[in-house]
Amino acid sequence: MKITIVGAGKVGSQLGRKLFAVGHDLVQVFSRSMEKAETLAKELGADFTNDLNRITAGADLYLLAVPDDAIRDVATYFAHHKFQEKLVAHTSGATPITVLTGQDIERCGVFYPLQSFSLGKEPDFSQIPFCIDAKRPDDLVLLKNLGAQLSPKVFEINDHQRAVLHIAAVFANNFSNHLYHIAFQLLEKEGLSFDLLLPLIRETVEKLETAAPAAMQTGPAVRGDEETIERHLRYLKSYPIYQEIYQRLTESIQAPEHQVT
Amino acid sequence: MKITIVGAGKVGSQLGRKLFAVGHDLVQVFSRSMEKAETLAKELGADFTNDLNRITAGADLYLLAVPDDAIRDVATYFAHHKFQEKLVAHTSGATPITVLTGQDIERCGVFYPLQSFSLGKEPDFSQIPFCIDAKRPDDLVLLKNLGAQLSPKVFEINDHQRAVLHIAAVFANNFSNHLYHIAFQLLEKEGLSFDLLLPLIRETVEKLETAAPAAMQTGPAVRGDEETIERHLRYLKSYPIYQEIYQRLTESIQAPEHQVT
Repeated sequence: MKITIVGAGKVGSQLGRKLFAVGHDLVQVFSRSMEKAETLAKELGADFTNDLNRITAGADLYLLAVPDDAIRDVATYFAHHKFQEKLVAHTSGATPITVLTGQDIERCGVFYPLQSFSLGKEPDFSQIPFCIDAKRPDDLVLLKNLGAQLSPKVFEINDHQRAVLHIAAVFANNFSNHLYHIAFQLLEKEGLSFDLLLPLIRETVEKLETAAPAAMQTGPAVRGDEETIERHLRYLKSYPIYQEIYQRLTESIQAPEHQVT
Repeated sequence: MKITIVGAGKVGSQLGRKLFAVGHDLVQVFSRSMEKAETLAKELGADFTNDLNRITAGADLYLLAVPDDAIRDVATYFAHHKFQEKLVAHTSGATPITVLTGQDIERCGVFYPLQSFSLGKEPDFSQIPFCIDAKRPDDLVLLKNLGAQLSPKVFEINDHQRAVLHIAAVFANNFSNHLYHIAFQLLEKEGLSFDLLLPLIRETVEKLETAAPAAMQTGPAVRGDEETIERHLRYLKSYPIYQEIYQRLTESIQAPEHQVT
């Protein structure tokens, strides 16, 4: 397939390289930064530009890997420049497909790899879930097939599901990382290294492969060990936000099951 | 060294096996369950009993791997039964050494492996931090040397530090697991599999090896993306506890740095 990559950041670069590696014809790379566009384009044997107006009509698929708040602008450009025969797909978890359909783009879709990419490190694509959506059924098939060339984990996910997936990822990923930060700070204050907790953290995550998180909840809250909870809350008295977080999470662990009904 | 294991649960079994494997002489295994005592004792070529009064004086070290709330009772027994020449160490992260010293046990210590053990799975001891404490300096050396035979990660950790380590572990481990559970529930309700998030969760934890958690915080809170935060809070309206947790954690991520002063 002839593919143009719009955006040469982490997602655009890693997707572009992988699509090139599995044999696709990379036509053009766009980035606002001419240097980024050129660097990636040379790797992919593609043309490059930093001017939206110079994006050519020569590709079958335009993959938008620009920041979320730029997707609408780029989509407007595509809508106004008669690429009506071409498929335009964005790669964002947080952006509804309606940003594209609202621009009267006839053939549009979502091609969202659910992973956080780094610039330097090549991701293990076989582990990455691809969340696919498209306005037209034939484009859905096309994007699913494309995803299947990169990963065995390809899922059809609609706008509503993708929005909930994003909320769930905030809890599982952003918020758990903040809890690591709280632990880091508490330990640092006592001259202790956060590294002490890494084996335990790794073990908890490894267990997720085989059991649901609720089945392996441990700690004073689930044990109902009120004495320990009180002692911990007293220690946290000087860190009111952390004390509050401790209380709310303890309450939630101790709440009756099935809060989500 | 001649070692008696008091408690044949996860910690007692895994520690007992490892101590046996590195060449120690396991004298006796105690468990309230005769079956557990016997099963472990046979693996270790040791005697066994389910009666505290039958614990013999033949060991150099008595390793207490009983539940936290049973440590005091077992310690009382040791204090009253003239094992004064013997070293008694508990293996608990949540229990101060004073539970032993308060019983007038002259030679006492803490030998705490900072990992959650499973019954079936042999742990990678080389990754487990051992947190050591002792009343007497010579016993501290003895327990540190013993720890060093099991793992390169041996640390002297006093009661106060161990208490803070426990609080930090509650945040990093128990509470992050509960966030996984929240994500699990939100996804389940939409017919989506929690497995979708596993690669992202693994990636977050892998990054902890190379960077402090604060340095790799991502998501709407740290970006100040209030529009997304509002949308997420609206979705969580029907799950008040989760909405509250979302708000508190967002606040905390957005709070000025150095809350711990």
